[in-house]
Amino acid sequence: MKPVAMIEQRRPDGSLRHLITLEDLGRQEIEALLERAQYYVREVGQRPPASERLKGVTIANLFAEPSTRTRVSFELAARRLGAEVVNIEVQLSSRAKGETMLDTIFTLQSLHFDVFVIRDAEPGVLAHVAAHVAPHVSVLSAGEAHLSHPTQGLLDALTIRQHKGPIAAQSIAIVGDIRHSRVARSAYQIFRALGARQLRIVAPVALMPEPREFVGCLRFETLEEGLAGVDVVMMLRVQKERFAQTEIPDGDEYFARYGLTAARLARASPAAIVMHPQPMNRGVEIASDIADGPQSVIRAQVSNGVAVRMAVLEAVAGGMSA
Amino acid sequence: MKPVAMIEQRRPDGSLRHLITLEDLGRQEIEALLERAQYYVREVGQRPPASERLKGVTIANLFAEPSTRTRVSFELAARRLGAEVVNIEVQLSSRAKGETMLDTIFTLQSLHFDVFVIRDAEPGVLAHVAAHVAPHVSVLSAGEAHLSHPTQGLLDALTIRQHKGPIAAQSIAIVGDIRHSRVARSAYQIFRALGARQLRIVAPVALMPEPREFVGCLRFETLEEGLAGVDVVMMLRVQKERFAQTEIPDGDEYFARYGLTAARLARASPAAIVMHPQPMNRGVEIASDIADGPQSVIRAQVSNGVAVRMAVLEAVAGGMSA
Amino acid sequence: MKPVAMIEQRRPDGSLRHLITLEDLGRQEIEALLERAQYYVREVGQRPPASERLKGVTIANLFAEPSTRTRVSFELAARRLGAEVVNIEVQLSSRAKGETMLDTIFTLQSLHFDVFVIRDAEPGVLAHVAAHVAPHVSVLSAGEAHLSHPTQGLLDALTIRQHKGPIAAQSIAIVGDIRHSRVARSAYQIFRALGARQLRIVAPVALMPEPREFVGCLRFETLEEGLAGVDVVMMLRVQKERFAQTEIPDGDEYFARYGLTAARLARASPAAIVMHPQPMNRGVEIASDIADGPQSVIRAQVSNGVAVRMAVLEAVAGGMSA
Repeated sequence: MKPVAMIEQRRPDGSLRHLITLEDLGRQEIEALLERAQYYVREVGQRPPASERLKGVTIANLFAEPSTRTRVSFELAARRLGAEVVNIEVQLSSRAKGETMLDTIFTLQSLHFDVFVIRDAEPGVLAHVAAHVAPHVSVLSAGEAHLSHPTQGLLDALTIRQHKGPIAAQSIAIVGDIRHSRVARSAYQIFRALGARQLRIVAPVALMPEPREFVGCLRFETLEEGLAGVDVVMMLRVQKERFAQTEIPDGDEYFARYGLTAARLARASPAAIVMHPQPMNRGVEIASDIADGPQSVIRAQVSNGVAVRMAVLEAVAGGMSA
Repeated sequence: MKPVAMIEQRRPDGSLRHLITLEDLGRQEIEALLERAQYYVREVGQRPPASERLKGVTIANLFAEPSTRTRVSFELAARRLGAEVVNIEVQLSSRAKGETMLDTIFTLQSLHFDVFVIRDAEPGVLAHVAAHVAPHVSVLSAGEAHLSHPTQGLLDALTIRQHKGPIAAQSIAIVGDIRHSRVARSAYQIFRALGARQLRIVAPVALMPEPREFVGCLRFETLEEGLAGVDVVMMLRVQKERFAQTEIPDGDEYFARYGLTAARLARASPAAIVMHPQPMNRGVEIASDIADGPQSVIRAQVSNGVAVRMAVLEAVAGGMSA
Repeated sequence: MKPVAMIEQRRPDGSLRHLITLEDLGRQEIEALLERAQYYVREVGQRPPASERLKGVTIANLFAEPSTRTRVSFELAARRLGAEVVNIEVQLSSRAKGETMLDTIFTLQSLHFDVFVIRDAEPGVLAHVAAHVAPHVSVLSAGEAHLSHPTQGLLDALTIRQHKGPIAAQSIAIVGDIRHSRVARSAYQIFRALGARQLRIVAPVALMPEPREFVGCLRFETLEEGLAGVDVVMMLRVQKERFAQTEIPDGDEYFARYGLTAARLARASPAAIVMHPQPMNRGVEIASDIADGPQSVIRAQVSNGVAVRMAVLEAVAGGMSA
């Protein structure tokens, strides 16, 4: 399969067609998406936004496993724009029933789907699909292997902007299993594109990425050092499966050494915010009182997720409508 | 977790916010719900009711297992009121992927869900959720452990009213596995609140509830005695798993001793109606000719289920709309 | 259960009520459905058709397994006509939770479903359901055992008409596992009803149907002979499970002997089209370059599937609306 970097995400007129990676998005393009997402943000308790902008557009949610958060978030985003959305559980990477991935995609395309929202564990599947669909069809990533989770990156940036102001003014620490994290990679790409003042990655050696990745980030192996003075603490979920595979200590020991506690958070700027993409392992990578504390913006991230997905769907499919 | 009884189901203004148990509902409150449900009742073959009363309201159907009847009934009720409804398969009681129940709920709340319809096998989960959600969010039970199934209780009462008149005039026998039945408990609560003339429970000793429960009911161990002269025979589903666990006889033997047959039904009032919450074990707790016979109102119960759920959804979320 | 042939698919006024088999559909009736389907056909890239013809109609998609193509195709057809559609995973033939099939159906009927779209592996289930539902309820087959797949037959006929003109002018070869194929049986019925010039079946002996079936078809055991001069090559999916059960050779060997290759296709008319119901086993029953080649109309079949299902839904439920 083609490497992701070779995929052209734009139409000949320069407009966004696919969103598979944030890697080649420019600052202005990102800012425009964030502005539009902000327009769709509502406080919890307010009526959600409603629009008919995507009326007549048909969207397929293609998830290999029945993911809750991201799948529902895309589903609601689509519906709140007036689109039709159909959830389809499908293994694109493995060849279920001997059907090749592209046959599945072409079949769905023939059913008049306009947008494929895809989560897949196999690197390159999204780019492969995007390279083959008809010109009017868009492909959106809802998480690709360890590589990319662009709408998560956008919602993270939106959340920081809301609570701390421009990304360019922030010192941001990404903490945890950087090596295997698509969340970390998309965050790194968007923060860099928006000119973050300082980017840090904080992880045990075994969970550090290769040196050729996360270029320009300061690297720390302890939270005590890594969080000193930062404006944003972005925690990642640790996969418990890693404990067995590497020399990573188990849950309690991990928490003792790398968990975000009040004492460690005190090293950051007093006005620092705490983020987490969820689901959280409370008591493993983050203490419960921090997750629920006054510096946590974790729930805002979730709300922003719907707004960001509305903005992205509108950007790629809005021209189809009317 | 807090016991169910401690949950306040009403808003400060007295209006119904949650429906987790019928235990503390007053007669007037119940009558008002039944009146409204009756408004939504349609004959099979008629066009179903349609309304836009809940337009803009977003409802999550949270079922641990893909239940057919009740899930679809809530889904149709929501759609026929113009609400958005999303089905989410989720284990709230077990901690799927290490995520705590409340994190899942707060996530969904941040996605702008207004109502959670929850079926769960673990007692207390619903009350726990209700105690933590934001003030504008409602929690509705779609069946909780052996404890409570309030919309089933409402539809049972509505069915009796339609076919026999006021509950206060009825002698009602609940028959079968009372001990483990949420249907029986909710029925008992609503019939008592509506002042049923006489309530009976009929069960083998092993399936009888504790003496502190079902206070005021006459207890019978045979259908021959228990059904004598009653106006309503409310059968329960027997779980075949019980046969092995207790000294309960197996299917054929159970039918011989406790099955509802024409001979046994003849002991009831000639105008008695027969109810069953389904799914039925035909030939175990009920003879097929009785299930399909002229005294059976079993299919009416199903239709009434949608109407009752429309009334309840409207009661808890109707104020949100417009 | 009643044999399928005994089911009356029409209402007393002669209009189509159920569609379980194409066996007793007349030429005019079929032509009318195809005309209407053609009205709903759109090129890929065009906006899909939208109508409110079935507003207020509620449709249940009852699939034993989560089938993708056909289920989604019916779902989109229903939505594009303005109907409500609910997907329900249900085992009608086996008695899940001890519930009989008819109890499930009566329950759904009481929930005000108007149309049941059913895929089932057990012969006769559909006719059994159709024989018991209320007069206003319609039953549509989405594939029944090895017996029947009527909307597939219709879409196959529509595809041939679009690309080759009237069926009556065509010589058509159906190739592959005829013996076990519902696609082949429905195709045979519709092509016969529309007076195909010549019908051929091409299969290894072990996959040939009984002599009493496919009456009037020429039978061939090699593609070299069977495809000579035909206008339409209709490939079937071969079930890999058959390789073990019979003396059928395995994948590579099957392809060598029965796969559709360029050399074999060259025996057909130069203007012949190639069809396949999907999913395809590329390199087993069909070579990839043929599947994707200029004579292939496989993707058109998929698009036509939605249009055909819209026409059928409208035919059976259109009178309910307004």
